[in-house]
Amino acid sequence: MTSPDFLSREYARALDAADPLSAFRDRFVIDDPDLIYLDGNSLGRLPRATVGLLDDLVRQQWGGRLVRGWSEGWFDASSRIGGKIARLLGAGEDEVIVADSTSTTLFKLGMAALMAQPGRRTILTDDLNFPSDLYILQGMARLAGDGYRVRVIPSADGVHGPAEALAAAMDEDTALVTLSHTVFKSGYQYDMAAVTAAAQRAGALTLWDLSHSAGSVPVDLNGAAADLAVGCTYKYLNGGPGAPAFLYVRRDLQDALANPISGWIGQHDPFDFALDYVPAAGIQRFLTGTPPLLSLAAVEPGVDLLLEAGMGRLRERSVRLSEYFIALWEVRLAPLGFRLNSPREVARRGSHISLGHDEGLRINLSLIHDVKVLPDFRRPDNIRIGIVPLYNTFAELHEAVERLVTVVNDRLYERHDTTGLKVT
Amino acid sequence: MTSPDFLSREYARALDAADPLSAFRDRFVIDDPDLIYLDGNSLGRLPRATVGLLDDLVRQQWGGRLVRGWSEGWFDASSRIGGKIARLLGAGEDEVIVADSTSTTLFKLGMAALMAQPGRRTILTDDLNFPSDLYILQGMARLAGDGYRVRVIPSADGVHGPAEALAAAMDEDTALVTLSHTVFKSGYQYDMAAVTAAAQRAGALTLWDLSHSAGSVPVDLNGAAADLAVGCTYKYLNGGPGAPAFLYVRRDLQDALANPISGWIGQHDPFDFALDYVPAAGIQRFLTGTPPLLSLAAVEPGVDLLLEAGMGRLRERSVRLSEYFIALWEVRLAPLGFRLNSPREVARRGSHISLGHDEGLRINLSLIHDVKVLPDFRRPDNIRIGIVPLYNTFAELHEAVERLVTVVNDRLYERHDTTGLKVT
Repeated sequence: MTSPDFLSREYARALDAADPLSAFRDRFVIDDPDLIYLDGNSLGRLPRATVGLLDDLVRQQWGGRLVRGWSEGWFDASSRIGGKIARLLGAGEDEVIVADSTSTTLFKLGMAALMAQPGRRTILTDDLNFPSDLYILQGMARLAGDGYRVRVIPSADGVHGPAEALAAAMDEDTALVTLSHTVFKSGYQYDMAAVTAAAQRAGALTLWDLSHSAGSVPVDLNGAAADLAVGCTYKYLNGGPGAPAFLYVRRDLQDALANPISGWIGQHDPFDFALDYVPAAGIQRFLTGTPPLLSLAAVEPGVDLLLEAGMGRLRERSVRLSEYFIALWEVRLAPLGFRLNSPREVARRGSHISLGHDEGLRINLSLIHDVKVLPDFRRPDNIRIGIVPLYNTFAELHEAVERLVTVVNDRLYERHDTTGLKVT
Repeated sequence: MTSPDFLSREYARALDAADPLSAFRDRFVIDDPDLIYLDGNSLGRLPRATVGLLDDLVRQQWGGRLVRGWSEGWFDASSRIGGKIARLLGAGEDEVIVADSTSTTLFKLGMAALMAQPGRRTILTDDLNFPSDLYILQGMARLAGDGYRVRVIPSADGVHGPAEALAAAMDEDTALVTLSHTVFKSGYQYDMAAVTAAAQRAGALTLWDLSHSAGSVPVDLNGAAADLAVGCTYKYLNGGPGAPAFLYVRRDLQDALANPISGWIGQHDPFDFALDYVPAAGIQRFLTGTPPLLSLAAVEPGVDLLLEAGMGRLRERSVRLSEYFIALWEVRLAPLGFRLNSPREVARRGSHISLGHDEGLRINLSLIHDVKVLPDFRRPDNIRIGIVPLYNTFAELHEAVERLVTVVNDRLYERHDTTGLKVT
């Protein structure tokens, strides 16, 4: 980045031309090349292969094979796709499965962990966790009853996770330590192995939310000896809107935990129609009802692309893209009042970067409506720049920075009125 | 049915020709007209309109609009489609919503009912209920803890629901009475108003599973003053494999009940990202996580077809088809050893008919593999004939009976070995 011409468009194009991973962009549907999409950490782009897969699933399988589809591959989809996701997460293929929404999945594993440790009543988390996760944890504590509580450790600066304060708070009442591995606002990333080790020293179970990590950074669940994890598939896995979540349960824990939503797909023999539930052995017991097959099947092509590219290579590209963006921020954006609301240190940062600005909300509206850049906004002031190494390019980041400069210098953001605006 | 020629193919064709509802069959994808599909009560056929809707959703909306889709209609889908389903069920449009799997949905409403009545600890059901429902109820009792139990009232004959024994079992410890409105094996249908009234006299809440009723018979939830209901959308609603379930909560109960899986979509303002959960008012609070949008959106065209045809007219056609089939059974199939394992009385029967036979399993295999008839089989001896008034025809039922006769008379079923067979 020290080259005198690194601010030029040509420099960005040269970086793209030199990177063999650049070819993966062509594997996605991109109708409007002038639209700069920087929200792939919210909803990933549509893989080209998904279009054909869904067409076949709907027309040939549902339309033609009808109910026979269930015995011709549909029933295996949860574990087949889970097994592929496991390879992105450093887990065994029999440790990951795909089924319900992220929130429902978090509830299932969280309640299973509470039920397995009746003498411990504290759920430990931080205030950088997804609010949606906090809501689920609060509901778990209400359901579990008297004495159960969610203890939320605050971040000192709103950017970095309170790793030391969390470790200090773990004690003999701690049932569960549950955190977003990569946090949704700042992109801060916990040291999974260190937190897991601290929790295990205190006798607690860990439950990681990998929604912003899966497909963006290499994860090593087995290497960290992580207990439990969940994560959504519609961000960096490109599974489509509302695609079902994956769950991970370490192999030696699987038969020790009970699924609180004990449904027929997790029963040991779903088709014997016995009147009493007997859980399946292994990861299968964490399934519940019939999975939403169209949404589930659409997860597979995106995962296949990640496996083909390789998480190590993708992380390396993600870091180069991110460092390039931060270098541009420093020269072009910091003088305009943009703050870096993400960790500067690469090892503690996922694949999205938050820029703070006093006019963040109006600038974000102007980006979307005036100059065809699509990031998203998270209160109070964060413009989130999602950098997806499978399809975002150096040239896009260069152009996005130039459009940000235009929005501020030409005061385009002043066109936008945020009175009564609902931020979505 | 007393006409001397009612056994002829021409008679069946004349019935089809005379019925204006016959035209709805053309609204479905039917690639192979020689395949007689009698399993629409397990997975409904693919509406033609669904093909185009999904193509647009995937290519234009996900592919082109990307994350903007959420504010351009996706977030409203759960309540918009729920509101349409409400019109099939005799409920208010603000009383029904679509989100998770049937099993998860049953868990949410069932636990909400238990939490609202801490002094009552018995869940009452029958042994004709879906085993999948019983598994969920057993998990609820385990989670709720000491003293909670599931009491399963047996059917006297395996065909009719034990309505009187259920009413007699309702007492001051009964928290919840939960039944399949139309039971999955025999097709028996409870008198919803009578059971609900008995439960309410005992101070208990009712939770109806409408999976085999929605779209096949008129349901009058408000007329019966029913408290809670769930049901799946992939049977008579034709929503596609694993399509998400609907839930109903009577308006005056909505703000009195708490969703145990308290997720962000049920929060009063999902995008303020506050750290503490505050439930939304009304039916919205029973949502949890991001819904599986491809599977959810596919529910709408099938519901539109049912609304267009009208549930009153469809029920009338379903009864005529069913009575015709039973008349053919009496003359053609009863002499071959087929038993009627469904109620004879129309008012107590849904839209599927179970035929028992000592060789039921092998006959079912022969139907599927030898003569292109697709029913399904439920132990011990039930060949289930799903009759879907939107697309099944009199001619199909006539031909299915003739093929059943062939399978038995030509002993085609003897080709099939059921040793070690897993029934799916």
